[in-house]
Amino acid sequence: MRRVGRVDTCPLTVVGVARTARTTKADTPVQAGLNRAEHGAVHVAEEFAEGLAELDGFDYAWLVSWLDRHGETGEAPLVQVPYLLRRTPRPVGLFATRSPRRVNPIGLSLVRLLGVEGTTVRFAGVDLLDGTPIVDIKPYVAAFDLPPGEPRCGWVDEVALAEGATPASLDPR
Amino acid sequence: MRRVGRVDTCPLTVVGVARTARTTKADTPVQAGLNRAEHGAVHVAEEFAEGLAELDGFDYAWLVSWLDRHGETGEAPLVQVPYLLRRTPRPVGLFATRSPRRVNPIGLSLVRLLGVEGTTVRFAGVDLLDGTPIVDIKPYVAAFDLPPGEPRCGWVDEVALAEGATPASLDPR
Repeated sequence: MRRVGRVDTCPLTVVGVARTARTTKADTPVQAGLNRAEHGAVHVAEEFAEGLAELDGFDYAWLVSWLDRHGETGEAPLVQVPYLLRRTPRPVGLFATRSPRRVNPIGLSLVRLLGVEGTTVRFAGVDLLDGTPIVDIKPYVAAFDLPPGEPRCGWVDEVALAEGATPASLDPR
Repeated sequence: MRRVGRVDTCPLTVVGVARTARTTKADTPVQAGLNRAEHGAVHVAEEFAEGLAELDGFDYAWLVSWLDRHGETGEAPLVQVPYLLRRTPRPVGLFATRSPRRVNPIGLSLVRLLGVEGTTVRFAGVDLLDGTPIVDIKPYVAAFDLPPGEPRCGWVDEVALAEGATPASLDPR
């Protein structure tokens, strides 16, 4: 059995575990949307298998995860320099970032579904460390999740988004 | 002080509370995306106020909520008839629905930001009961949250989505 993360620290019911090729935070892409080609899987616990029925009819899904390896340094700072601003450092409010260091370390990853076989959900779009606890899977529904027009995206609109960016690649040192 | 929901039952840190005009589950729209005109607010706890800096640069945000009034009947069924399928009843897997009755009752609402003043975040798009605990706010970032093309959305693609639909309006009885 490979390392399964610190599932024991999660205050929620863990419905599955992410399996990816990423084992260190520094080398894990900061967003699934910036790493859409890489494949991973969620191994859903047997007791929740029935809940996957018809998920394969959706092209995309949200993985709601418990970012178990981002709480080690204590409380999340309310003002942070996001990874994507590290080369032009500027602090912004936590709730205006997608930083993994949050008051509640809940991750939200949009992934493309590749297949559901038994209790394995294969996907493309990896921003999770191997072993990250998954606490929910929700289907992507355009009618609910797609805002009209071209919404302003704050400071992110000013940043060049590099495919596959990781904390290490974004570190100016 | 108005009723603030059952914040005490939430195993996560509550960062704020949703304020809406909706007080009963049956008459609360099932999705913010189907009720985009109605306004609400999040009253963020004073201790997290700093985390709101620069949120106002984004047009949309995700409210991650704890659906505190959907766990009363015990464990969530793994196979459910979604509200939106009540007129043509068919059970689907929980993880292929956006049902509020989930293994972990975590809600995900896409809302349009109207303004951030002090600790009050005003928004449009209401699917939360008044007093619902908010456990995270994340900015909507198109580069992360917008899938390319026109993804298949499973059973939802077969359903007529009525603006403002509520459990009561969708009940065939």
